[in-house]
Amino acid sequence: MTDYFSQRRLLVDERLQAIATAASLPQPLVEPVRVALRSPGKRVRAILTLAAGEAFGSAAEPLLDAACGFEMIHTSSLIFDDLPAMDDAELRRGEPALHRRFGEDLAILTAVALLNHGYGRIVASHKRMKPRRWSLDAVLEKVVDAVGWDGSVGGQAVDLHSGAATLDFPTLEYIHSRKTGALFVAAAAVGAMLGNAAEPAERSIEAYAKNLGLAFQITDDILDVTATREQLGKDVGKDEERLTFVKLVGLEGARELNGELIDTSLTAIAGLGAPARPLRELAEMLRNRTR
Amino acid sequence: MTDYFSQRRLLVDERLQAIATAASLPQPLVEPVRVALRSPGKRVRAILTLAAGEAFGSAAEPLLDAACGFEMIHTSSLIFDDLPAMDDAELRRGEPALHRRFGEDLAILTAVALLNHGYGRIVASHKRMKPRRWSLDAVLEKVVDAVGWDGSVGGQAVDLHSGAATLDFPTLEYIHSRKTGALFVAAAAVGAMLGNAAEPAERSIEAYAKNLGLAFQITDDILDVTATREQLGKDVGKDEERLTFVKLVGLEGARELNGELIDTSLTAIAGLGAPARPLRELAEMLRNRTR
Repeated sequence: MTDYFSQRRLLVDERLQAIATAASLPQPLVEPVRVALRSPGKRVRAILTLAAGEAFGSAAEPLLDAACGFEMIHTSSLIFDDLPAMDDAELRRGEPALHRRFGEDLAILTAVALLNHGYGRIVASHKRMKPRRWSLDAVLEKVVDAVGWDGSVGGQAVDLHSGAATLDFPTLEYIHSRKTGALFVAAAAVGAMLGNAAEPAERSIEAYAKNLGLAFQITDDILDVTATREQLGKDVGKDEERLTFVKLVGLEGARELNGELIDTSLTAIAGLGAPARPLRELAEMLRNRTR
Repeated sequence: MTDYFSQRRLLVDERLQAIATAASLPQPLVEPVRVALRSPGKRVRAILTLAAGEAFGSAAEPLLDAACGFEMIHTSSLIFDDLPAMDDAELRRGEPALHRRFGEDLAILTAVALLNHGYGRIVASHKRMKPRRWSLDAVLEKVVDAVGWDGSVGGQAVDLHSGAATLDFPTLEYIHSRKTGALFVAAAAVGAMLGNAAEPAERSIEAYAKNLGLAFQITDDILDVTATREQLGKDVGKDEERLTFVKLVGLEGARELNGELIDTSLTAIAGLGAPARPLRELAEMLRNRTR
């Protein structure tokens, strides 16, 4: 099980380094971009793209650019979220938040560049793979929706501006499905599209990723109260003024909900057969994280 | 002359309003996005897309989404540039800078959304127009290059991190060709591509826009020392610690250089005939701004 994931993670890290090395960077951006791209993330979104594309018979290699594109877009959103005006984080992935090391201006410019070139890498994979069923515009519409005002940007805006006073389930689901879920869905959907999945199968992958994304965010909420800063490599206890699933349904309720979401995600891809095994294993790994 | 420009500007403003109205915005983003999109800019980049596409026989209407896409990407960069960590601006287009009105967090999220949905509008125009000679990937590569680490982001990073101590012509040209020139070139090039321009003609449009962009930035440098805050609707005298063409070659030298660049831009499109008239008029309008 871990073989697949550690090997894919290595491929993603190598490609991200290659992208940073090949980039025509002016001197002030050299270090911030390289540090941002070599930061030791779990690369879940990139692996979703790879595993979804591979589930339909694609090789990992041509999917790698798109997978890295999603990782770059995700890293961009982390840099923005960590800024003093947002979460004011000290630590991210076990290292100082980017703005604490390079200043806010270069952190912001790095984040803008990563979002922008993330698009570039997704375009590059489509240009190379040319899936018969899915045009580049269809692929990019998924990305635009996932990132924008009804996607992760919208989720973050509502998260920052909903005090604990408005603690209710619909608001919480709005935030979580967008902050995390939307990019999970797009990363998996684009992988499936690049792998030339038929429409019903592509919809199954989206249902899988939607439930997985929500489970992933609930796992984050759980770990924020149960794990240490050292274990997570980022600030913990930051959710005190935030709406979380743990607050709404308690720690045990959150664990139960997590398990149900993972079951639902597995049901969604039950018909996909053996090549979808890494997608199933990914869901099981997430189930085990809060145990 | 002004008829064409005022009418196109109206079309762009109407479409930007329609985009803001149609957007599925969560409550905290409603006002920031609407204010950012209705802000009374000159819409030069949008008009470049329209005029370039129309020069090859396209109607304005199907180009409008892409034109607004460039305007959204430009507005995004202005919001970022105005932040306290960058220029710390008070005023933009005659109104308070977005972060001063809505807070830094919502300003940043609005800027991210505008960059993202700017891509979406460019994709939408290509999907509708399907120019025979230019694939969507070719179109988007222009945009990615213009915005990213070797485009406006790179230009801004070098601008913020080059003190007056490193005042030299290559650095200044690096900054200006990227901060302003790159998006000018992409806006015009994408207009030409959507209008199905042949390759040599598309290259002429790029040469035109590159020189025009540099002239536009020099005009900005000149006006920063000769115009008032009220005339420009933004902070002036902000360039004191910055490298500018006026510092390098003096006010008269900058005016001369400006004129030469505009001549060069006109020469580049001399072969394009009558439909390129608005592009010529745009260059002449710029020549007259510093007189």
